[in-house]
Amino acid sequence: MTIYLQDIPLPQARERFEAALKEAGKIGVLGSEEIPLDEHALGRVLSTPIWASISSPHYHASAMDGYAIYSSTTSLAGPTHPIELLIGTQAAYVDTGDPLPSWCDAVIPIENIEHVSEAIATHDQLQKMMRIRIRAAVTPWSHVRTMGEDIVATQLVLPAGHSLRPVDLGAIAASGHASIRVARKPSIAILPTGSELVPVGQPVQAGDIIEYNSIVLASQVIGWGAEATRYPMTGDDFDLICQRVADAAREHDLILLNAGSSAGSEDFSSRVVERLGELLVHGVAVRPGHPVILGMIGKKLNRIPIIGVPGYPVSAILTGEIFVEPLISKWLGKSPQVPITMKATLTRKVTSPAGDDDYMRLAVGRVGDKVLAAPLSRGAGVITSMVRADGITILPRGVQGLPAGSEVEVNLYRHPSDINNTIFAIGSHDITIDILAQLLAEKDRRLISANVGSMGGLIALSRGECHLAGSHLLDPETGEYNLKYVQEIIPNLPVKIITLVGRQQGLLVAKGNPKQIISLQDLARNDVAYINRQNGAGTRVLLDYQLRRLGISSDEIRGYSNEEYTHLSVAAAVASERADCGLGIEAAAQALGLDFVPMYQERYDLIIPQSYYESRLLNPLLDLLMDQGFKNTVSGLPGYNVDQMGQVIL
Amino acid sequence: MTIYLQDIPLPQARERFEAALKEAGKIGVLGSEEIPLDEHALGRVLSTPIWASISSPHYHASAMDGYAIYSSTTSLAGPTHPIELLIGTQAAYVDTGDPLPSWCDAVIPIENIEHVSEAIATHDQLQKMMRIRIRAAVTPWSHVRTMGEDIVATQLVLPAGHSLRPVDLGAIAASGHASIRVARKPSIAILPTGSELVPVGQPVQAGDIIEYNSIVLASQVIGWGAEATRYPMTGDDFDLICQRVADAAREHDLILLNAGSSAGSEDFSSRVVERLGELLVHGVAVRPGHPVILGMIGKKLNRIPIIGVPGYPVSAILTGEIFVEPLISKWLGKSPQVPITMKATLTRKVTSPAGDDDYMRLAVGRVGDKVLAAPLSRGAGVITSMVRADGITILPRGVQGLPAGSEVEVNLYRHPSDINNTIFAIGSHDITIDILAQLLAEKDRRLISANVGSMGGLIALSRGECHLAGSHLLDPETGEYNLKYVQEIIPNLPVKIITLVGRQQGLLVAKGNPKQIISLQDLARNDVAYINRQNGAGTRVLLDYQLRRLGISSDEIRGYSNEEYTHLSVAAAVASERADCGLGIEAAAQALGLDFVPMYQERYDLIIPQSYYESRLLNPLLDLLMDQGFKNTVSGLPGYNVDQMGQVIL
Repeated sequence: MTIYLQDIPLPQARERFEAALKEAGKIGVLGSEEIPLDEHALGRVLSTPIWASISSPHYHASAMDGYAIYSSTTSLAGPTHPIELLIGTQAAYVDTGDPLPSWCDAVIPIENIEHVSEAIATHDQLQKMMRIRIRAAVTPWSHVRTMGEDIVATQLVLPAGHSLRPVDLGAIAASGHASIRVARKPSIAILPTGSELVPVGQPVQAGDIIEYNSIVLASQVIGWGAEATRYPMTGDDFDLICQRVADAAREHDLILLNAGSSAGSEDFSSRVVERLGELLVHGVAVRPGHPVILGMIGKKLNRIPIIGVPGYPVSAILTGEIFVEPLISKWLGKSPQVPITMKATLTRKVTSPAGDDDYMRLAVGRVGDKVLAAPLSRGAGVITSMVRADGITILPRGVQGLPAGSEVEVNLYRHPSDINNTIFAIGSHDITIDILAQLLAEKDRRLISANVGSMGGLIALSRGECHLAGSHLLDPETGEYNLKYVQEIIPNLPVKIITLVGRQQGLLVAKGNPKQIISLQDLARNDVAYINRQNGAGTRVLLDYQLRRLGISSDEIRGYSNEEYTHLSVAAAVASERADCGLGIEAAAQALGLDFVPMYQERYDLIIPQSYYESRLLNPLLDLLMDQGFKNTVSGLPGYNVDQMGQVIL
Repeated sequence: MTIYLQDIPLPQARERFEAALKEAGKIGVLGSEEIPLDEHALGRVLSTPIWASISSPHYHASAMDGYAIYSSTTSLAGPTHPIELLIGTQAAYVDTGDPLPSWCDAVIPIENIEHVSEAIATHDQLQKMMRIRIRAAVTPWSHVRTMGEDIVATQLVLPAGHSLRPVDLGAIAASGHASIRVARKPSIAILPTGSELVPVGQPVQAGDIIEYNSIVLASQVIGWGAEATRYPMTGDDFDLICQRVADAAREHDLILLNAGSSAGSEDFSSRVVERLGELLVHGVAVRPGHPVILGMIGKKLNRIPIIGVPGYPVSAILTGEIFVEPLISKWLGKSPQVPITMKATLTRKVTSPAGDDDYMRLAVGRVGDKVLAAPLSRGAGVITSMVRADGITILPRGVQGLPAGSEVEVNLYRHPSDINNTIFAIGSHDITIDILAQLLAEKDRRLISANVGSMGGLIALSRGECHLAGSHLLDPETGEYNLKYVQEIIPNLPVKIITLVGRQQGLLVAKGNPKQIISLQDLARNDVAYINRQNGAGTRVLLDYQLRRLGISSDEIRGYSNEEYTHLSVAAAVASERADCGLGIEAAAQALGLDFVPMYQERYDLIIPQSYYESRLLNPLLDLLMDQGFKNTVSGLPGYNVDQMGQVIL
């Protein structure tokens, strides 16, 4: 049994796959179909060019409501020399779009014709109704849409390979076609495997994996223009997987076999491919996503590609983007998708495995005149990092990392305008920041918060890397919050300090407080495991201050060196029995059904540089701090106090 | 009867419409529905935020295939001091994703474990299988995905108003939801009216309008996230239109009543709105698209908005973009679409009606280091101008025009990368240019050709406004083509001249040549109407040269001053009997079923600046000139000769 993979470089993997596809005759458009020209053609890809079969207009059409005339009969008309034309033989009323009578070569718009009734009131009543008077000569073909003005029969209207937009459907109709030939949609089978899988919505036990990769993969391929079949989950049963894959191969153009693509004891995918055909690639040097399998299965004359998709969700998504999308595009006859790119500056140093193409997820925002890219979690299992990612940058093989301040090219996952509406908040985490984010989303602002603790937020402000920092740093000497730290860390940056909330800090303990932890003294007990916050977090500053006051050394506390970055993560550590207690806020305890031992009241402020205060970007946020609805929501959270919300401290 | 509209400014029109919508309670999300979380949720818009109901992982999970251990038992291990752990009580095999046994706090990847069998070969066989050996201490929680690493229960996963992408569906599933609440899709009724309408695909008579606006509007609203109902066509019957609109209003959120929105004798839309409700706006100061109607119909307690959409296709499309898209977005609870923008330089002067917001269509391409925007047709009926448009720029009310060289902000209709793959060809038109465009589309290049005649192309080259110019300018003194003109017009621009084709010029005449036109002398006949090409066209140069040679004055030729810009347009003029003959190429005659009187053989060259010759952009085009398939296609066209194709003249 191989216990780990030999990854090959991405270009080499692509090459092998393409060669095999070519050999199997599966490299171009798979087939085409004739479909009626209606709204269902939207997004389909033309497999043959559209040449106009008729002209548009297909006749000389009046471009206005008015009178069709023969231009040379007007040549003597002038402001002081009006001429009159007899309706019927010299002028004919036409509506917009009406064909020009054959004896006409121009149209006079109705608003340019004089009210003849006034002018020739002395004339016979019948004659009066039959004449128009004009005071300007008319040039030939004026206000006429001549035949072929828009489209001349036989001209190229749209090339093959074009993805149809609404306007294209109109142009095709105008050029005389009622049906079109488009590329057949490739059909993709998605087979989730693994005995640990449980369907979405079912209660989960430890070890259960919620099966959602097939939903993500199916919606990816649908978005790329293919059809998806999601198969039922198959347990780790080699023969059953083989049978289902073989069945799927008979009715599909591509098999995506999810999970089991690595080399563990229950990873069957590579053997399934070997049993049913040829294993081309097992392991590609990309992070995340390296345990990819590429193969061809089925009979010699009808070989079907199969991709073993890794089980980690981020790996699965990237496998889709890297291998599936280009294949679908080829099969549809169109160019592969090209991301919109933006240059941005890395906010911190990153390292990268030298042997891999490293797909790094980034949050991107404009702060001042800089576009900043903040690296997100690198974990292949952290799907929220893909949700939050504004884009990715690829650190190619051979690059072992980049220093902070490097310029990177970001392949955007989001509309560039979103980047400009993004508020970058770096600092301490608080649940009210999540609520702000939700409410700001309704006001066209995107609040991205990086939780690096209060001190980290101030340092980010000093580097010009965020629009605001949340902070609750206690000054042990004065009992005041934030002021001293702002003066020390960012003395030269003019800022406003605005209170967000007052909140209760205390110990988060398991339901019923089984270890009877009631004060910080209990942290020194042998039977108590603590979960700490990281250095620079306001909660950590508070803990260290109180420990010093009580004369407790950190060495006495088991778990003091185990750190988490948010209140909720501390609560999760206690809920999962990784620790017995941790200092944090009551809302986090209640969120995860823990008990809470209240201890200290503290103030949580927003630190905002003067230059962003009352800016277009931040105004909606400042408005919310004055909003009674927001105050009511927050004061409904346990341990929160909104009395000082919106107060400007500095 | 009002005979023309009083347009009001766009912001005022929007304000009236929004006030009426607000009064009717139709300004926010129309309603929501619970749908299962699967691939069909793609693109739907969340109507409530997603807060995590479980953590992800919801247990401590092994991040690798390996052995779960308790970290402190490894603290003494080192490279020269291996320790051994008993499987079962000190180490437990785990696959990736398996839950950690409760007595473990770390995982050692399988590749970091020594092959114990060699090391302890002297031990008892049973014991040997039960031990692993390691040579490094393990830090707590290494290779473990701790509970909540990705998502902590209660945290905000996605805000309301978010349009769901594939990755979002995964994150929602991971956070414990099997169904989601999304905004109900607004339902839009589209009613085409007009007795002149004929369905797509039916043979057309003069005066018939092919009804395709409803297809375009339906696919627009579907693309924006709504549902569309296309009603059958209704003739110009006021009562019947009223009845159908009233019926549609009972089952839809918005009515789009197409055409009849102006003030002509058969324009019923405004009266329909007045009969069924309230006419808010009739005429908006936007070009194209000004005869827009905005109104509210139905009973006081259930008023439904109605938009009278102009009949010209470009006006209809822009009405969709300006009025319908923002409304649908509001009803879905998301932000209105924001275009991607790009700055570009206008290639020529434009004028604009001062009273209107003028939506100007542009072709956009990068030539050298400049992004150029070439204004396209302004006609509201020219749908191909929207197909060709890479974007629009809005010349606001009050602006009467812009000089050539002005910088404009373009709202792109295309992916910015398309702009970089665009070959700008300006000059003489030839059918082989259309064929090149089709073949280049398959090679990721977009060939945009502006047909301004040979001389215009050389002038565009001199201004750096295109990548190549097609030219067939005869030097009357030498009988040679293009060389002299290149030397005179662009003496300082190093260029290559490459022959595209040799082709036959002659007179295009009606089928059967009823007027027996056999030479240029016939153009001086009283009963012959000529259709000319514009000044600077190679065909015009040829005509003028031959007329001079024959001693015929242009005054003697009826229609000499009527100009068209392409061979096909000349053919269309003859086919529609606007003229009896015109000088042009045989392919154009054949395309429209005309007869052809052959006269002269000429050479058509491509003039390419040295700096673009053999560039990444143009290489696929140069390759095609050497391609036998392309040569065969072109030589199959009547009057074409490919003997010199690809030959470098200069």
